Amino acid sequence: MRVTNLVSKTSRTFPADEEAKNAQLLIRAGYIHKEMAGVYSFLPLGFRVLEKIKNIVREEMNSVGGQEVMMSVLQPKDIWQKTDRWDDKKVDNWFKTKLVNGTEVGVGLTHEEPIIDSIGDFLKSYKDLPKIVYQIQNKFRNELRAKSGLFRGREFLMKDMYSFASSQEQHIEIYENIVKAYFKVYERLGLGEVTYRTYADGGIFTKRFSDEFQTISPIGEDTIYLDREKGIAINEEIMSDENLAKMGLDKQKLEKVKAVEVGNTFHLETKYTDALDVYFSDKNGNQQSIIMGCYGIGISRLMGVIAEHFSDDKGLNWPKNIAPYSVYLSFIGQDEELKKTAEDLYEKLTDQKIEVLFDDRDARPSEKLTDSELLGIPFRIIVNKGTLSDGVLEFKQRSKTDLEHLSFEEIINRLK
Amino acid sequence: MRVTNLVSKTSRTFPADEEAKNAQLLIRAGYIHKEMAGVYSFLPLGFRVLEKIKNIVREEMNSVGGQEVMMSVLQPKDIWQKTDRWDDKKVDNWFKTKLVNGTEVGVGLTHEEPIIDSIGDFLKSYKDLPKIVYQIQNKFRNELRAKSGLFRGREFLMKDMYSFASSQEQHIEIYENIVKAYFKVYERLGLGEVTYRTYADGGIFTKRFSDEFQTISPIGEDTIYLDREKGIAINEEIMSDENLAKMGLDKQKLEKVKAVEVGNTFHLETKYTDALDVYFSDKNGNQQSIIMGCYGIGISRLMGVIAEHFSDDKGLNWPKNIAPYSVYLSFIGQDEELKKTAEDLYEKLTDQKIEVLFDDRDARPSEKLTDSELLGIPFRIIVNKGTLSDGVLEFKQRSKTDLEHLSFEEIINRLK
Repeated sequence: MRVTNLVSKTSRTFPADEEAKNAQLLIRAGYIHKEMAGVYSFLPLGFRVLEKIKNIVREEMNSVGGQEVMMSVLQPKDIWQKTDRWDDKKVDNWFKTKLVNGTEVGVGLTHEEPIIDSIGDFLKSYKDLPKIVYQIQNKFRNELRAKSGLFRGREFLMKDMYSFASSQEQHIEIYENIVKAYFKVYERLGLGEVTYRTYADGGIFTKRFSDEFQTISPIGEDTIYLDREKGIAINEEIMSDENLAKMGLDKQKLEKVKAVEVGNTFHLETKYTDALDVYFSDKNGNQQSIIMGCYGIGISRLMGVIAEHFSDDKGLNWPKNIAPYSVYLSFIGQDEELKKTAEDLYEKLTDQKIEVLFDDRDARPSEKLTDSELLGIPFRIIVNKGTLSDGVLEFKQRSKTDLEHLSFEEIINRLK
Repeated sequence: MRVTNLVSKTSRTFPADEEAKNAQLLIRAGYIHKEMAGVYSFLPLGFRVLEKIKNIVREEMNSVGGQEVMMSVLQPKDIWQKTDRWDDKKVDNWFKTKLVNGTEVGVGLTHEEPIIDSIGDFLKSYKDLPKIVYQIQNKFRNELRAKSGLFRGREFLMKDMYSFASSQEQHIEIYENIVKAYFKVYERLGLGEVTYRTYADGGIFTKRFSDEFQTISPIGEDTIYLDREKGIAINEEIMSDENLAKMGLDKQKLEKVKAVEVGNTFHLETKYTDALDVYFSDKNGNQQSIIMGCYGIGISRLMGVIAEHFSDDKGLNWPKNIAPYSVYLSFIGQDEELKKTAEDLYEKLTDQKIEVLFDDRDARPSEKLTDSELLGIPFRIIVNKGTLSDGVLEFKQRSKTDLEHLSFEEIINRLK
């Protein structure tokens, strides 16, 4: 992509009411546009990052047997009344709207009820279980305040997965497989080493804890207590001697750290399946309850977390698996030959299937370098007079300070 | 995918209030689930078809320079007031909802206003034009009646593209390029030979006609008059001697046919860009209006159209580019060797990157064959005793009646 063709541009400003650093950076770099508090649009660069995160999540969810679906946003009242989650007094962050004939409908904030309603007819026998389905779709939550940028939106992109099992053993096997898949996701997103499985409140339907996946970061809004040796943490909210005993954690060994939640998994037991009258017949023909789990990863939230977590005072700094482009390429100097060399290089890199953002503007050097840092593209290649006469190129990693002088072949090896 | 693992199952029934044949078929085959009138969820098979249509549309939109974005569903009132499209008396199919603080917000039914608002700041100079952006996203329209299945939904998946040009010449060049891309889409979807560019009402902002892309089909809800020789049609709604003269069409040569709309393109002139105060500076530094075009393809509608258009009394019949799987594979007979041969074949076909739906059920032959036809998978391979002893397999195309007996190698050649 040529910078002169790209729809977005960088900017020094952001909306005055934008308090969150992640959104400030992403707006300035032209990745997103603020529609209202907690609602953002994704411009081409932001869309590319979202798609890359989506595809990593999708691959890992497929690898544990998840089947992808797309549920509707508009929600009929009746299925939510069966689980007692329609009333605004019970669930206080619904967006609701009306059909022309006055019928109230919900705007999807989660999808346990509709997924059970959609596939319940296919889960009649023990032979039909287990099943795992997921979707990656916008969710809508009517948050009173929405000041955290992509961390907590009124509209946000989420991967939500649901599992259905015929026994506790089957459920736990699936649940633990999905936990492993979550860690593969965080690994691929560059967060693997700083993300911990964290015990959290399980809700009123289960005696089990739920799990949060918490990334240690100074930008975190949560506080967790971490046992580094065991690689396990506990959310401050449920910190008690009784709970520590249940988890086998020793208070003395725990380290208090700030963390940001990048996923969660819940045991729903049979609460929702029972409420929607969905049962299966076991081997003896007896009717049994279906055990359900649900598993969330906020895709747009992760984009915000990663944007902010890896940023520095110069701008964004994407992990290479999800950067919108791998390479920022430009030339510095007036000589026509420099631009022509950069053009040739753009073609050669593209031929090698390397995703290049080619800054083909005749802009001031400082403007180009400032933009390249704000945009956070992992690798930068600059053609200039000095390097060109030596037959090399200036190569820099966004996350490092040193400039290297490498041949084209050396650069290709670095990038692959 | 094994049929025993697949979340959905076929069924002989559909909801009593489902009048549309496309939805009846897709529900019976387990592709979609009806949430309410005009609102459907897409189960794994349906999701795969949607994704394949999306990817074809995406590739062709990228090929004309479209940059993909994702706008928000939730819409702030102010930008729509500027174009006078907020008031329910002006636009009667909005879904609206409210933030906790009482602020009214819209649920996106189209995206001219937000796209101009999002990228207007990047279109300040003639050098910034032209630009083309698009998205593939759910749209929401509060239709009074929604009885046509996927043809006209209250919630539906749409590709909407917007172009911005600095002159009429630039606009028309883009517009005609996009028309060509639309035909490539229909070609790849198997509708190329029966889809015609059709003049339609251009709206009140332009003297130009808009274009509809109409597929000739007995299931069509529109009537068009077709000049086969010229490959151009005119919608009955604007059929007049005056319009025919403008188009250079001869009334005597026109053929009246039923057709279904599978896309449309509009000249918006400067109506919306002017209303939102987005202008560019020309080479002389003078402020000029930006000429806008918009271009829609209903992705879920296309799925419904294709499902119904190609169907027969036995069920669906997908064009091979968008079928959820290319091959339906099964075995008929009790012998364990038959099942084992089919298992081996499943592995071998999958190794060849062929997408196979393997019916591994021990079900009655009639049930398997009926299901394979209802599901509409383009090619069917059956292992049975007779063919096996001859060292061949039974091969059938969904769209043909004859059975063939082919070796594995011959089948691979047919599929590639």
